[in-house]
Amino acid sequence: MKIAVVGGGQLGRMMGLAGIPLGIDFVFCDPAANACAGAAGPVHVGPLDDPASVAAIADGADAITYEWEGVPASTLEPFVHSHFVAPSLRALATSQDRVAEKQLANELGLGTAPWIAVDDRAGLTTAIERVGTPAVLKTRSGGYDGKGQHRILSIDDGDAAWTALGPAGSLVLEGFVAFDRELSVIACRGRDGATVVWPITENHHEHGILRESRVLDDARTQARATAIVTTLLDELDYVGTLCIELFEVAGELLVNEFAPRVHNSGHWSIDGAETSQFENHVRAMLGWPLGRTDPLGAVAMLNCIGALPEPSAALAIGGAHLHDYGKSPRPGRKVGHLTLVAPDENTLQERLVAAREVIAATAR
Amino acid sequence: MKIAVVGGGQLGRMMGLAGIPLGIDFVFCDPAANACAGAAGPVHVGPLDDPASVAAIADGADAITYEWEGVPASTLEPFVHSHFVAPSLRALATSQDRVAEKQLANELGLGTAPWIAVDDRAGLTTAIERVGTPAVLKTRSGGYDGKGQHRILSIDDGDAAWTALGPAGSLVLEGFVAFDRELSVIACRGRDGATVVWPITENHHEHGILRESRVLDDARTQARATAIVTTLLDELDYVGTLCIELFEVAGELLVNEFAPRVHNSGHWSIDGAETSQFENHVRAMLGWPLGRTDPLGAVAMLNCIGALPEPSAALAIGGAHLHDYGKSPRPGRKVGHLTLVAPDENTLQERLVAAREVIAATAR
Repeated sequence: MKIAVVGGGQLGRMMGLAGIPLGIDFVFCDPAANACAGAAGPVHVGPLDDPASVAAIADGADAITYEWEGVPASTLEPFVHSHFVAPSLRALATSQDRVAEKQLANELGLGTAPWIAVDDRAGLTTAIERVGTPAVLKTRSGGYDGKGQHRILSIDDGDAAWTALGPAGSLVLEGFVAFDRELSVIACRGRDGATVVWPITENHHEHGILRESRVLDDARTQARATAIVTTLLDELDYVGTLCIELFEVAGELLVNEFAPRVHNSGHWSIDGAETSQFENHVRAMLGWPLGRTDPLGAVAMLNCIGALPEPSAALAIGGAHLHDYGKSPRPGRKVGHLTLVAPDENTLQERLVAAREVIAATAR
Repeated sequence: MKIAVVGGGQLGRMMGLAGIPLGIDFVFCDPAANACAGAAGPVHVGPLDDPASVAAIADGADAITYEWEGVPASTLEPFVHSHFVAPSLRALATSQDRVAEKQLANELGLGTAPWIAVDDRAGLTTAIERVGTPAVLKTRSGGYDGKGQHRILSIDDGDAAWTALGPAGSLVLEGFVAFDRELSVIACRGRDGATVVWPITENHHEHGILRESRVLDDARTQARATAIVTTLLDELDYVGTLCIELFEVAGELLVNEFAPRVHNSGHWSIDGAETSQFENHVRAMLGWPLGRTDPLGAVAMLNCIGALPEPSAALAIGGAHLHDYGKSPRPGRKVGHLTLVAPDENTLQERLVAAREVIAATAR
């Protein structure tokens, strides 16, 4: 069996490393010749907005998938009649447009922050008046890790926000959510509609970049997150792994955004769950049964931003699993992660303290 | 970091797949251009009895190791002064000679079956008289998966045994051990001498080929196996993973043989232990701290001999992890394995019944 993956970053790399033991061959396309997924299969070099890049890897593939949600639907569209392409282009296109994403969530009865689409300077003023402040102006498409966003604390910030983002095209103003926790729920749906859901995680960001995810053992919140993700997956007739980022506000869960792919907040599942988000994604691509998602203990994941910790120091921590993406160090770049698995929450806490120290010693 | 591995079979493949997430590059040498370790790094094609094959992969390697215990020590000897080569050539050479292996075990106070070296036909008669029957005549070196062995049930079998194995060179007669169980213990020793030991397994062979390994929760036997393997590792000043196959006879453990490498009876550790035998081997090669070996539940491993089961059927079993080595099917060939992880022994039993059926449906 062969899976063609559009994008050759660390998500593709980990997808491939999860699938190779199952006897699956992988082939990637990526703009960078040294794309780190190259450890898991050949990389065809080409831009991801060109169907020719996909054509170069599609031959003989049993499924075509992607590991970057910025792939234009037009790149994949030529292949939907000749190949199994998943997740669907509808899921991809919806996730690329914050307005379509929130519209779909609201239509499905899922809560979101208050939001209004903004198409011109006057519309921004109206939106600020109706949504209220604080609020966040965002580009409708593009933008990740905190990029393409501008905070608005009062109506007076409208000009600065417009100057920063107006040229970027269509925008959306979102009411600022004073959340209690940022959570995410990751699920995988098979070709037969069977769905598995991993334990939710609580996520901590810094400067818009995920730093830590902690697996939660919280049955009530889990049940609500599971209901939300299942509703979305079924509506989209989705196949593969998907992540929804959620805000928890006064006990209520609001949909922030979803990613139609494996997700950073699910990396813990490689070492900390019975089956990882990556393995189940490839199983779903091939129509194989999905594996159980039970956690293997108390689990947390810490991102390595900019640089990797010293392996000797990181691996000296009990229950530590180090993942080096094979990328060159650069400030702000995700170059690896460290997963901690512990028999109980107290032990996990101790290991987290040690792991944060090791990572802080090398972070850039 | 880079590790050069002599041999490119499934053991090398799994070693590489365990090390790639740690940011380690692998390079292999193997006689076969399509060696299945190719999924984990480039394969230089060359015979394993030629130091030139190692020279072709040694450049820039931080460690040289091997995944086949048949590599002649003379292949590796030229590199011991320029590179870190482990496990040591003494361990390798001892494991290749059943007489040296048993002599070392006995010198260390470790029990073995009664044995006598046999160098000629007359020696065989003397040996049968002293060791008694039933007994097994084996080649001193070579032979695996039941090859290179001949059973002797009475003194009259001497001629047939000599005809079969006499031309093979030096031999050893071993008293047949009416064992209660075949067990193995796998351990890994770091460059600093720190040693971790996995839970022992009970192994079932058919026609000399391992079919199943079950992880045991048996503190008393574990303690004795741990003492045996630690004694051997320390005597050899060993670095890396090693397996000792043991016979349990009336509550006593006898050393059958040891392999100075990762071992089939430890494959369960990929999915069923906190750290696998493969990951700890590569950590040991680089002088990194070793990971904990705790089991993640009740665990068993079933070999796929000759052909792989249908992935859809195998993966439908709860807690099943399928490993396809990427080798072409052939009767008697190990082409993959299936690990089962379960929350308790009863559940494991149920899953084992299902897994045996799935494997029997495809085995050749």
